[in-house]
Amino acid sequence: MAQPFTFEKPIGMRDVTPQAFQHKNQAANRFLNVVKQWGYDQVQTPALEYFETVGRASAIADKQLFKLIDFNGQTLVLRPDMTAPIARLVSSTMKQVPYPIRLSYYSSLYRAQQVEGGKPAEFDQVGVELIGDASGSSDEEVLVLLQEALIETGLTNFQVAIGHIHFLNSVFKEILSSEEDAEALRRYLYEKNDVGFREFVLSLELTPADRDRLFMLTELRGGVAVLDQAAELVYSQEGKQSVNELRRLWQVLIDEGLDTHSIIDLSVVLHMEYYTGCVFEIYHEKTAQPIGSGGRYDGLLENFGRRGSATGFGVRVDLLAEALNGLVLNKKMCIVFDSVRRKEAYDRAKELRSEGTYVVLQNKNGMNNLEELDGSFTQVETMCE
Amino acid sequence: MAQPFTFEKPIGMRDVTPQAFQHKNQAANRFLNVVKQWGYDQVQTPALEYFETVGRASAIADKQLFKLIDFNGQTLVLRPDMTAPIARLVSSTMKQVPYPIRLSYYSSLYRAQQVEGGKPAEFDQVGVELIGDASGSSDEEVLVLLQEALIETGLTNFQVAIGHIHFLNSVFKEILSSEEDAEALRRYLYEKNDVGFREFVLSLELTPADRDRLFMLTELRGGVAVLDQAAELVYSQEGKQSVNELRRLWQVLIDEGLDTHSIIDLSVVLHMEYYTGCVFEIYHEKTAQPIGSGGRYDGLLENFGRRGSATGFGVRVDLLAEALNGLVLNKKMCIVFDSVRRKEAYDRAKELRSEGTYVVLQNKNGMNNLEELDGSFTQVETMCE
Repeated sequence: MAQPFTFEKPIGMRDVTPQAFQHKNQAANRFLNVVKQWGYDQVQTPALEYFETVGRASAIADKQLFKLIDFNGQTLVLRPDMTAPIARLVSSTMKQVPYPIRLSYYSSLYRAQQVEGGKPAEFDQVGVELIGDASGSSDEEVLVLLQEALIETGLTNFQVAIGHIHFLNSVFKEILSSEEDAEALRRYLYEKNDVGFREFVLSLELTPADRDRLFMLTELRGGVAVLDQAAELVYSQEGKQSVNELRRLWQVLIDEGLDTHSIIDLSVVLHMEYYTGCVFEIYHEKTAQPIGSGGRYDGLLENFGRRGSATGFGVRVDLLAEALNGLVLNKKMCIVFDSVRRKEAYDRAKELRSEGTYVVLQNKNGMNNLEELDGSFTQVETMCE
Repeated sequence: MAQPFTFEKPIGMRDVTPQAFQHKNQAANRFLNVVKQWGYDQVQTPALEYFETVGRASAIADKQLFKLIDFNGQTLVLRPDMTAPIARLVSSTMKQVPYPIRLSYYSSLYRAQQVEGGKPAEFDQVGVELIGDASGSSDEEVLVLLQEALIETGLTNFQVAIGHIHFLNSVFKEILSSEEDAEALRRYLYEKNDVGFREFVLSLELTPADRDRLFMLTELRGGVAVLDQAAELVYSQEGKQSVNELRRLWQVLIDEGLDTHSIIDLSVVLHMEYYTGCVFEIYHEKTAQPIGSGGRYDGLLENFGRRGSATGFGVRVDLLAEALNGLVLNKKMCIVFDSVRRKEAYDRAKELRSEGTYVVLQNKNGMNNLEELDGSFTQVETMCE
């Protein structure tokens, strides 16, 4: 097998250069600052977890997992998401901490890519998990927090599309004869493939009325009026209740002045299978993929031995930075010195730094072409004999 | 094979709980703030690199590498250090950027552990690399920066032990008959096993004078006077030059008032094999292992196709936080509300947050035992009907 060239990186792996890092870091810090104000505690979990525990619970397709074998023959995975690791954390290391628990993170996630097709195999995510509060208040809290954090970070023109897993599942249960068909339709919705969805519905043996009900699902996108249509589309108690939950949620968004950034979209289906209630995705015109997503997952904690309802979201930091305008770069100056005036240059730099200026100290003998400095610094000061 | 319990983590993997995270994060941010003031640009490199490129260059023992195989059959490693990845970065993604280049990082590193013996398999490191400045100024710069950053971070009573690889190698070359013997002695020094060192020297066929010269190596620890002894111990031009380099360096530390935190220790040998000049380690009475280390590595860049002298250091953030006193925890208050007064509670929280207070909003229906809140918050305010 050909060896990789020394400059190559594994498929989907990226370097983050100084400028890109500053953008990402500003975006993440502004966002995390709001999360902190809301009383969420940041935590870290290991990059590697057991496949049998967190790997399986994450419900990420096997081919997307980076797997390795440890000294004891156990399979390990690089964490593909943070929700499952935090569920493990809350059920083990933090099992004495009473509910509700509010946690946040800023972590790298890993999803193996088979071709170099632009999708990152490693990406940073900021997010929160609110665990152990079964009241509808927790859905309201994370949605308001999410939007306030995005606004404070400086994001404009974003849209949060809010749906409900129970609503979709209720309609499917009322109409479809098999879970396989429901799974197929969920997949089309997840892929936002309305044409595929339509064709699949047409291939099923259904009454014209039921067919129209399924077609309607892809049209339930808009303001609060959509909820009136939705309430008529679903017959079961569970389905109607999910509509009422969304109605309450929408009222809170109106109260907080956030409904302008929101849309009801009952076709929202997320990548992860563990969601059990209200779910949402964040869209922005500048990014090809959703900037983030989240929702309620009341069943996941139980897998780790500590029952608890939960809700949360994750935001891709690279996409957030891409969608932001007006991120600023550090301004730096440079003092060029020689050995005779070294002490003087160090003193001057110290003074400037204490005033908030970023200062590079450069011995003139340490570089070939002093003129190259002009492009990299706002100012170059020379202190040589 | 027995499956892991749901609560288990792979060997050497750790959760970082809220309190530990705050300590770590404060330590890292204070440190990185100084690094930024000195004009270093933070970057990120991928967690996974090719074994054949960065893995080999890192010179970490094979059994300490986490390895996996990608879709193309190439072996990948979780990065065991940051110096080799940054050498790759500077030689590839940043190859157009003129020397000198000043970079910093705050990254997780991975070293596989075979038993759960207290050593972490994942740890965070902050560090800098100054690449492409061949003047002695760069050694001075990183040592002054390191100590200023430690002091600004709040660390007291630390000690930086400074040695020189050329000095040791010169003495070994003058006395020993094989590189294997030199390697064995370097290993004893690295392990700080003075007894083993002594016994090994006694097992060699040497003149009494040469034996005494080797014994002396473990005693060349102290202030500048040590350098006078060192200059007599070594005969070769290269060896004497290394003593002069240290003398110049020491003078800068005196000028900057940092000699009180420094010690000359000509027995310093580091884990990595790529060091080629002045090397140093940071000790603190509170930590069992050195908090950090660094030095000059003029040969490493060449492996990646862009020649350049370089120097830098890395500091373990967990050990730095452990050695620090007076880290503070966030103070949070809690507003307990019911659905009737929700809007009022949100408004009050918003106001308090804008004044800098961290505020948790908690619906009273979302938890079982409101009294548990008292222990977690500095203040609990109730806004219910």
